[in-house]
Amino acid sequence: MPHIPEPQPVSVPPAGSRSAAPAGQGAAALPEEVAALLKRDAAGLVAAVVQQFDSGEVLMLGWMDDEALRRTLTTGRVTFWSRSRREYWRKGDTSGHVQFVKSVAVDCDGDALLVTVDQVGAACHTGTRTCFEGRGLAAVVGHRGA
Amino acid sequence: MPHIPEPQPVSVPPAGSRSAAPAGQGAAALPEEVAALLKRDAAGLVAAVVQQFDSGEVLMLGWMDDEALRRTLTTGRVTFWSRSRREYWRKGDTSGHVQFVKSVAVDCDGDALLVTVDQVGAACHTGTRTCFEGRGLAAVVGHRGA
Repeated sequence: MPHIPEPQPVSVPPAGSRSAAPAGQGAAALPEEVAALLKRDAAGLVAAVVQQFDSGEVLMLGWMDDEALRRTLTTGRVTFWSRSRREYWRKGDTSGHVQFVKSVAVDCDGDALLVTVDQVGAACHTGTRTCFEGRGLAAVVGHRGA
Repeated sequence: MPHIPEPQPVSVPPAGSRSAAPAGQGAAALPEEVAALLKRDAAGLVAAVVQQFDSGEVLMLGWMDDEALRRTLTTGRVTFWSRSRREYWRKGDTSGHVQFVKSVAVDCDGDALLVTVDQVGAACHTGTRTCFEGRGLAAVVGHRGA
């Protein structure tokens, strides 16, 4: 159950600006109550696990800073921070493989998000449905009572 | 489908030793073919998404270095690297909330693992089944064709 006040629709600042909006100037910013929940890494990022809302498939893992999370919470579309390209990346803008947001939750220690989505087409840039498909490692299986 | 040779059962070095085993001395190490797939962060870690194998629930996100992954692949139990305690952490050893390994896959760019498990009891140290339960954020929902 959501326990955070509903964010108000806000204008989106130009991509590439990662600095927090100055307080009291009406600029878009992640609500303080949400920002206070996050435990960011040295680069200011948290991990975002993306899951297909109906099938339960884990599609991919991306990274978000406060601004990427703000956009994800307020626009119905998933935006990541691309660590390799160092820019915001709204999933599907070039590939068409859009992720429509269904829910967002933060974990108990604030370093991970779970974003459920409706994924159009392949989540992976390689063309597979998920980024983990066909990439299994040999593992010893464990069992209860073993 | 696994495309990596089956790891051989190996002895487990003492927890706290994070240095790679010297080559050619028969010490336990992650197979080179697996290690070559990983893109570790500055701390030598990759993110590990843990999912209940049958229900599809995303239970938690943890962190693994090469040795934690080696133990996870070879013992049937999930081992993480605890960033806060700076030690290996075999899930359930103190809580009883064991994770039995069902499968492990690496993602397309090597910075994330998907570990499916059979989770005994609560995955979260707070007592909830998953680390995301009851921690939803207010989000605008998106729709195809909107």
